[in-house]
Amino acid sequence: MFAPECPSRLMPLQIGDKWTAMIVICLEHGPRRFGELLVPLRSITKKVLAETLRAMERDGMVTRTEYPANPPHVEYELTALGRSLLTLIDASREWCREHLPELAEARARSSANG
Amino acid sequence: MFAPECPSRLMPLQIGDKWTAMIVICLEHGPRRFGELLVPLRSITKKVLAETLRAMERDGMVTRTEYPANPPHVEYELTALGRSLLTLIDASREWCREHLPELAEARARSSANG
Repeated sequence: MFAPECPSRLMPLQIGDKWTAMIVICLEHGPRRFGELLVPLRSITKKVLAETLRAMERDGMVTRTEYPANPPHVEYELTALGRSLLTLIDASREWCREHLPELAEARARSSANG
Repeated sequence: MFAPECPSRLMPLQIGDKWTAMIVICLEHGPRRFGELLVPLRSITKKVLAETLRAMERDGMVTRTEYPANPPHVEYELTALGRSLLTLIDASREWCREHLPELAEARARSSANG
């Protein structure tokens, strides 16, 4: 789901904004710092990551906790509502496993027919 | 899913283009003519309906059959691939039933907090 050439880019299903589903997957196994989220999301910009996280916080999907350590840092964690999106993500992954080849074939056929 | 004020407009999940999921639902119980699809989809324009159906045809989700009757007409029908989207639609409806109130509350809270 993260590699640009990943077939799931064909996926006809989008959860939240463009990056929401991938951020949910990154947070599935526990809280992450902002910088840690940048690593697996490759082509995302800091601006877009910050905007997406703010929208997810507004929607009650993640919590944002500030740690006044040295250096201070911020951690993002899935809420129960955010975690509930995993059922939709699993359903769409299942759909992709079963049907993405058919979708890709149909698109190739229609491009060939012009 | 069709009434503009329907809460599922809040739904954080989109299948295909904006209207794809609603068109799949309209075709769930059998083929429909272009004009018949305009009725339940209320605010869709003919141009957008035609574009969405063409994209669905390209993706192998629907077939388009011309009937040279008098007057001639065209019918759209779900393919097996198109019908497979119903599992995702059902999963997202289930998610909405369970979680849409929480999502709406979270958004109301964050708007109140400014």
